[in-house]
Amino acid sequence: MQIMDGKKVAAEIKDEIAREVDQIKNSGGKIPHLAAILVGNDPPSETYVAGKVRVCEEVGFKSTLVRFTDDISEERLIEAVRDLNKNPDVDGFIVQLPLPEHISEPNIIESIDPHKDVDGFHPVNIGRMVLGLPSFVSATPAGIIELIRRYDIPTAGRSCLVIGRSNIVGRPLSNLLSLKRYPGNATVTLAHSKTTNLPGLILESDIIIAALGSPEFITGEMIKEGAVVIDVGITRVKSDFTKSGYKLIGDVKFDEVAPKCSFITPVPGGVGPMTIISLLRNTLLASKSKRFG
Amino acid sequence: MQIMDGKKVAAEIKDEIAREVDQIKNSGGKIPHLAAILVGNDPPSETYVAGKVRVCEEVGFKSTLVRFTDDISEERLIEAVRDLNKNPDVDGFIVQLPLPEHISEPNIIESIDPHKDVDGFHPVNIGRMVLGLPSFVSATPAGIIELIRRYDIPTAGRSCLVIGRSNIVGRPLSNLLSLKRYPGNATVTLAHSKTTNLPGLILESDIIIAALGSPEFITGEMIKEGAVVIDVGITRVKSDFTKSGYKLIGDVKFDEVAPKCSFITPVPGGVGPMTIISLLRNTLLASKSKRFG
Repeated sequence: MQIMDGKKVAAEIKDEIAREVDQIKNSGGKIPHLAAILVGNDPPSETYVAGKVRVCEEVGFKSTLVRFTDDISEERLIEAVRDLNKNPDVDGFIVQLPLPEHISEPNIIESIDPHKDVDGFHPVNIGRMVLGLPSFVSATPAGIIELIRRYDIPTAGRSCLVIGRSNIVGRPLSNLLSLKRYPGNATVTLAHSKTTNLPGLILESDIIIAALGSPEFITGEMIKEGAVVIDVGITRVKSDFTKSGYKLIGDVKFDEVAPKCSFITPVPGGVGPMTIISLLRNTLLASKSKRFG
Repeated sequence: MQIMDGKKVAAEIKDEIAREVDQIKNSGGKIPHLAAILVGNDPPSETYVAGKVRVCEEVGFKSTLVRFTDDISEERLIEAVRDLNKNPDVDGFIVQLPLPEHISEPNIIESIDPHKDVDGFHPVNIGRMVLGLPSFVSATPAGIIELIRRYDIPTAGRSCLVIGRSNIVGRPLSNLLSLKRYPGNATVTLAHSKTTNLPGLILESDIIIAALGSPEFITGEMIKEGAVVIDVGITRVKSDFTKSGYKLIGDVKFDEVAPKCSFITPVPGGVGPMTIISLLRNTLLASKSKRFG
């Protein structure tokens, strides 16, 4: 059994990116610049955006945070998006979700220039991804694909069960892993809340990607020997044994499942650290190519 | 066992559309107008485009055929697309594929205004479809979804095997049938050339959509009792018993498979007639809404 150490791989990729930014600086090139729009002051959103800005600075990117109060109109927010679309110094940008209820998220996302859509949420990027064309892929799926690649996990012809059909995790992964390339060429089944016989499907699968958000749902007897298990679930539960007073629990009962696996991601330290890296990679690609990643 | 009679359903839908066009005419509204660009004179493409023009006329649409010789440059073809994008009388249009080798199909497709892309090939339409947003869906998947709807076939929680991952049939269907709606909510597996154990997967599935292009691949003993079988395969083989000298063979050995099915589509007369109808429906929607279908 081998642990897929997302924390270590993410640190390696961060170093690679930082070195590349150094080279760009030394050769007088343009410093990659990521902007983020934050509406309101939802505490988790504040935390996520602050984390993104911090990591940008750590690798030497330029970053800009554009803030609005949560009473901004949709029209005004679209204007702000258009300003960033037109700003030649901004290579890529994100609009932190969720947005206030009076604003249509699809309308905002579709107003982003697809070539600057480093979150990979624009339908053009999703469509291009599904077609196997170059595109920006959203953070969690891109991070998982990169982790599979770095651990050289075989995927061709293997049965892969993706549990959870969200637009930002399960659905893109189900498409990516069935594309005609590596990682890919897997026989992918997409399971969700309406799926019957989930335990039977899990037991038959070579690769299981759990994105249900159901703490420790997958137990040892549910998987077959040698399976690859990637745990996307992160549920925050109270704990008396941590300084913060809570801990993060994945969708997989790690202690039971890990001994049966060929590869497994831990929580925390597996998929989580890979996600922010994907945003950096997309921004770097945007700054170099002015085209899709 | 019930036959899903695509020919009959397609004729019903054609009548519905013709009646709606009549009403539009009577109330002085704008007649739906489909244009088609045809490059070169590939005989199958000539046949397909002629068929589309004929059906347009049968339901009372206006149609325009724009022809170019196969030495047209990519730039000139994109110009022609832009002209149709701007032409307020044209509600929707298609560029008949394949295009000559010196022209990039993705470049041409991405130059089409997504709101006029009644073939549903533009990445925006594919992305919106994958996200479950209103979009134009390409002809074969849309036709199959409509056939499932008209025969009221339950899909929620059922295991659905889509065999073949093409961008215009298998992949869109795998996404559509797993969306959170009806038809949809199925547990979909997408199989393809790299899939191992295809017979095992077929035997376990409630709904099988065969788009392999392998004549009579699926035999009676391969499917379970009560399965729904939708046959997308069309292979032309020589025959001494037809006037034309050839006949069309599906991916399913109909005589063996049909008695075990709850529902099955024949070839010909199943999926085939439904496809052209989808193009008409998309064009009608485009003419009414000037938005996605």
